[in-house]
Amino acid sequence: MQLDILGCYSATPRTFNNPTAQVLTLNHRQFLIDCGEGTQVAIRKQKIKFNKIKQIFISHLHGDHFFGLIGLISTFSLLNRQTELHIYGPKGIKQIILLQLKLSKSYTSYPLYFHELESKEPELIFEDDKVSVQTIPLQHRVYANGFLFTEKPGDRKLLIEEVQKYDIDVAYYRSIKKGKDIRLDNGSIVKNELLTSAPPPVKSYAFCSDTVYKPEIANQIQNVTALYHEATFLEKHEDLAKSTKHSTTNQAALIAKKANAKNLIIGHYSTRYKSIEIFKEEASRYFNPVYLAQDGKVFEF
Amino acid sequence: MQLDILGCYSATPRTFNNPTAQVLTLNHRQFLIDCGEGTQVAIRKQKIKFNKIKQIFISHLHGDHFFGLIGLISTFSLLNRQTELHIYGPKGIKQIILLQLKLSKSYTSYPLYFHELESKEPELIFEDDKVSVQTIPLQHRVYANGFLFTEKPGDRKLLIEEVQKYDIDVAYYRSIKKGKDIRLDNGSIVKNELLTSAPPPVKSYAFCSDTVYKPEIANQIQNVTALYHEATFLEKHEDLAKSTKHSTTNQAALIAKKANAKNLIIGHYSTRYKSIEIFKEEASRYFNPVYLAQDGKVFEF
Repeated sequence: MQLDILGCYSATPRTFNNPTAQVLTLNHRQFLIDCGEGTQVAIRKQKIKFNKIKQIFISHLHGDHFFGLIGLISTFSLLNRQTELHIYGPKGIKQIILLQLKLSKSYTSYPLYFHELESKEPELIFEDDKVSVQTIPLQHRVYANGFLFTEKPGDRKLLIEEVQKYDIDVAYYRSIKKGKDIRLDNGSIVKNELLTSAPPPVKSYAFCSDTVYKPEIANQIQNVTALYHEATFLEKHEDLAKSTKHSTTNQAALIAKKANAKNLIIGHYSTRYKSIEIFKEEASRYFNPVYLAQDGKVFEF
Repeated sequence: MQLDILGCYSATPRTFNNPTAQVLTLNHRQFLIDCGEGTQVAIRKQKIKFNKIKQIFISHLHGDHFFGLIGLISTFSLLNRQTELHIYGPKGIKQIILLQLKLSKSYTSYPLYFHELESKEPELIFEDDKVSVQTIPLQHRVYANGFLFTEKPGDRKLLIEEVQKYDIDVAYYRSIKKGKDIRLDNGSIVKNELLTSAPPPVKSYAFCSDTVYKPEIANQIQNVTALYHEATFLEKHEDLAKSTKHSTTNQAALIAKKANAKNLIIGHYSTRYKSIEIFKEEASRYFNPVYLAQDGKVFEF
């Protein structure tokens, strides 16, 4: 599992800081999460292949999370993309994109699908044989979702010595790895658990930005491998967090703790702060390990 | 007169090349012309003050000329701008911007006015005591205008020795500079041309992008101080220019020649070319001087 941070600051793009966008690589899939202005250039800089991205998830319709989407969609067309693209985001996103395509008399060179979200309950919005994606309802100034990406369990691991002991033909290996029991030539059944061990534990990633402190999030993301939770403000600015419906360092850490997360990444820093080191210091008082998101940073879990 | 090129490549933003945007400084006014994605960051890098920009002119609704506008408008609000902002651009621009502001529940902190353009004839769209702006109808795949910025003539220059010879009171200097004749105490009239010399010649700037080769443009911009004309393609790709409704190097130069322009700047290069030096070489065969637009370059005329 790899997470490329393309941008992680709040509010406005700045000379050296992009607004929110990240690419999650999980079980051979790549997902773009949020798409602030400048994301297409950040993707190029990060040397991520445009064509690998087939799903884009937009948390909410504040500019720092989606103003780069129309540009990315257009660029894909100019590059004559053929691969289909799916956009998951709040109701309204389709109208925004299609209006601009229509007025510029530009139609995409590839199939473009919108999956508009309205529910306030967690929903399964994407699933294939590798990964599933659920919404994590957040609470912000506009309708907002986080996203929980969960790897599908891999095949069970063949205990090759056991399999050979029973003299099982190689043609059955695939079904054994899928969990099937085996009937031997003498008619007896060998239980799958004698032939295999459990697959490696699945990895998962939860993206939660932007949101007020919402402890219920923790229930949905129990044991998550990595949690990205916004920490727009330091503890001392809890009042600002409250009034703008954001979270603080300690609140992000408390969610990670309650969720029994393995790792916490914080980001979406307000640009009022000169340095972000203190964000880590504060969050680390409540949870470990804490990592600071930064443009261009790559996390592997 | 100063021209800051913020971006000048066609089609898609790239790692080191921005799409079209430029800031014209003319007679103490600053105008933003076009606003491709990333323009707000380019303005910051160029150290141009956001608040100085009160008018934005959008040539046409292709993404590489306006996808940065919504982000700029939003950022102005986040910075609590109070100064009013006027947007001049094709019909539809207002709907695009307002839809996005509405869905993000963001309203501007400052008065925002739209002046939507539909006419296919040149129109005077802005005028104050310093500068006037006319549309230059272009021909492209969508409705498009260039813009002609013309300085208002300054005051006539006082010939101070002449004025003193007639013993004219200093209280009259202002009206003399404005061109008035003077009645002396003895009743005789002194013609203004004896007391003043002509003001310095006015400067003007014509922005023409994107367009097919349209020789009529030259009539409207006769004797322009500087012409920016798109040259998306080299001469050998005239067929591509034609089919995509763009111009070539030689066509841009011919417009400059026909217009008796003092200077020609070319830009909007297709990203198919590795180097842009040959653009200058080609255009210079037909007109001189030719300058190459480049991101971050500043021209003074």
